[in-house]
Amino acid sequence: MRLYSYWRSSAAYRVRIALNLKGLPFEYVAVDLARRDGTKHDAYADVNPQGLVPTLVDDGTAIGQSLAILEYLDERHPDPPLLPDDPLRRARARQLALVVAADLHPLGNLRVLRYLEREFVATEADKRDWHHHWLGLGLEAAERIADAQGPYALGASLTLADLCIVPQLYNARRYGFPLERYPRLRRIDAACATLPAFAGALPERQPDAPCAGE
Amino acid sequence: MRLYSYWRSSAAYRVRIALNLKGLPFEYVAVDLARRDGTKHDAYADVNPQGLVPTLVDDGTAIGQSLAILEYLDERHPDPPLLPDDPLRRARARQLALVVAADLHPLGNLRVLRYLEREFVATEADKRDWHHHWLGLGLEAAERIADAQGPYALGASLTLADLCIVPQLYNARRYGFPLERYPRLRRIDAACATLPAFAGALPERQPDAPCAGE
Repeated sequence: MRLYSYWRSSAAYRVRIALNLKGLPFEYVAVDLARRDGTKHDAYADVNPQGLVPTLVDDGTAIGQSLAILEYLDERHPDPPLLPDDPLRRARARQLALVVAADLHPLGNLRVLRYLEREFVATEADKRDWHHHWLGLGLEAAERIADAQGPYALGASLTLADLCIVPQLYNARRYGFPLERYPRLRRIDAACATLPAFAGALPERQPDAPCAGE
Repeated sequence: MRLYSYWRSSAAYRVRIALNLKGLPFEYVAVDLARRDGTKHDAYADVNPQGLVPTLVDDGTAIGQSLAILEYLDERHPDPPLLPDDPLRRARARQLALVVAADLHPLGNLRVLRYLEREFVATEADKRDWHHHWLGLGLEAAERIADAQGPYALGASLTLADLCIVPQLYNARRYGFPLERYPRLRRIDAACATLPAFAGALPERQPDAPCAGE
């Protein structure tokens, strides 16, 4: 398997965790999103029509969209599972994943911040306010949906919800967003941080991350 | 089952189609999103922590996020299926659904347009440009991913990708976005329009739609 990734992408981070959890070896291919114009057609657009990361290539087929990749990996390599057995609990895990992946993360994406800068002459403070606004709404909803006992988002077992929450908290910290109001999410984050699959997926440990000295 | 819906919501529209396709009767509960401040806590926030529609209530449990609901309905009521059997084709259907549901639709949502208006003093033309920009990127990607032969997005059988594309095209027309460049998507739309499940889910046929005379 081959993973097209960018070290700082939250969406690629989710898939790196899943591949590690399931013990699947993969070739890491770096796509430099920060230097790319999201609208331009280049060779990568043949791999991913959106020009976004991640893309997983398996059996010669390229799959985009991180949640589609997580579901695919879980169907092909069910151990350990990323979803509970019970349909209502599976729905809850997917709901929580989508609160982050559909209604929060796309609004803070690089291409969106660039649009705000270009078309609305958004300052750094404007972009920060924008990002914090959606982080606040999204994380508040996620906090209310997450299991009260834990340690993970759905309770005793990891699910794809955790794989979305951990990268989103990493992103929130990077943008200086305070996390005091989200004790359940911080508990999930702390529990996941002890697992090698999560540690190995950290942005700064990826081959395309800048060296510590830079 | 009970569905919290708003006639004009693309996300609720997806779920209405699925319920109709599977022949599942449901109670329609209207949530007036246009009159609600998306951030305020009210009784509906106890049903859906994001304050968004749709929410499906089944067996006393409330599920938010349209794609989580579609997957749930498909697991509990597998006939007719909303996903192919083959894992790679399932992944393609989910990828296409997410191109619309995660990377396109949330950017054109009412709460986002309201933020642009409030914080960036966006005019009607600014909001239209914003909406059209993301429609262009999202629909172009969807067009490239959709099956060349059809009639549906994945080929001969309906999938949840079609349930996302049809409401998004309805939304695009409403905002005056030209669809000439997307022949595959228009073909999907035309094929679905002949099915009673899609016709019955149309926004203007919902109980909370304004009367034709208004």
